[in-house]
Amino acid sequence: MRIAVLGTGTVGRTLAAALGALGHQVVLGTRDPGATAGRTSPDPMGGPPFKEWLAAHGGIGLGTFAEAAGDSELVVNATNGAASLAALGAAGAARLAGKVLVDVSNPLDFSQGMPPVLNPVNTESLGERIQRSFPETRVVKSLNTMNAGLMVDPRRVAGGDHSVFISGDDAGAKTVVRELLESLGHKDIIDLGDITTARGAEMVLPLWLRLFGVLGTPDFNFKIVRG
Amino acid sequence: MRIAVLGTGTVGRTLAAALGALGHQVVLGTRDPGATAGRTSPDPMGGPPFKEWLAAHGGIGLGTFAEAAGDSELVVNATNGAASLAALGAAGAARLAGKVLVDVSNPLDFSQGMPPVLNPVNTESLGERIQRSFPETRVVKSLNTMNAGLMVDPRRVAGGDHSVFISGDDAGAKTVVRELLESLGHKDIIDLGDITTARGAEMVLPLWLRLFGVLGTPDFNFKIVRG
Repeated sequence: MRIAVLGTGTVGRTLAAALGALGHQVVLGTRDPGATAGRTSPDPMGGPPFKEWLAAHGGIGLGTFAEAAGDSELVVNATNGAASLAALGAAGAARLAGKVLVDVSNPLDFSQGMPPVLNPVNTESLGERIQRSFPETRVVKSLNTMNAGLMVDPRRVAGGDHSVFISGDDAGAKTVVRELLESLGHKDIIDLGDITTARGAEMVLPLWLRLFGVLGTPDFNFKIVRG
Repeated sequence: MRIAVLGTGTVGRTLAAALGALGHQVVLGTRDPGATAGRTSPDPMGGPPFKEWLAAHGGIGLGTFAEAAGDSELVVNATNGAASLAALGAAGAARLAGKVLVDVSNPLDFSQGMPPVLNPVNTESLGERIQRSFPETRVVKSLNTMNAGLMVDPRRVAGGDHSVFISGDDAGAKTVVRELLESLGHKDIIDLGDITTARGAEMVLPLWLRLFGVLGTPDFNFKIVRG
């Protein structure tokens, strides 16, 4: 499948590399590809500079948000939640129309200090805002409840014995995303319902962040244990 | 231990019965004990009328919020989240001073229809409001992330292999609550930190409610799976 991964941070890179390794044709989308490709300073999360990373991942393309989205069959929104609507606007509603968009972002708001709060929250979610802003796109919220490493390699913790959620209005799009998740190794995929259920998935972030603090590792996940 | 359980709904009754069965001396607190004791109509959740329930649980007392709290060593807030501050105010700050208060409530707001939203949320939590309103009480948020049946009998799902959280400012109070949770069968008790971490624990409720909808049973819980 031709997949556009919008966002070149840790999440975008990790997803792009994993989807490329599965045989998909992946293009990373960014605001200014020249600036991104030229970046020689280390990644803020401690990874290699983007230029080195891209050279080491020969099969992965780089383009503007619009170029990446235009040429894709499926789009992943891995941009910073605060910038997601702008990034998708730059990709362009026409280029996103009819496509499945997997929204893995979280609306974290650091403006009030640490820990971040959510914006939107409670009566609204970023997943819903994206769906409403791009009504012809088939938005599925997923993967936002775990670290990037676990998104693409769930087996690294407890052999993959934990859960991932999907929320969206389009049943066909959820089937596509379910298959993509299974191809990454996810076993317990729980369909929460329509896109409004993204509120619940996004609102676990404050607990995730506290758990990250006390466990001292991002290698953990939620498992929904039932009888 | 002499325990006051404030609130006579399903959660309060379930906790009172279980704590009584463990040998604690339990008094249920309610706004109007005469009205509560006289209730002969079925419980809204399908349980027996309160009068029958109380007769079947001979060791458990019933009093006003103030009577229950005044005679207790430890207090459980199992009132409706929207009414918790008023109920605790009726119990009286002096009667709660110095005591451990286990807050199991959730600030669910049904005023905008279903599903309920949270109020407070995000930059604030009910646990924090209670701690701030009763500064001499040692508030520990816990158990609010699961159904009443699992609170008191975690082994009924997956042999108890799931998690419970505690949040609070007082280390000694958290030790008391940890021991109480262990006595109920909880194995994986995660201390999230100070009372502000109650935000994270309360904010999983929207996901819990959606999972309840799709799983069709309240017999499930979150397990924090780590490497």
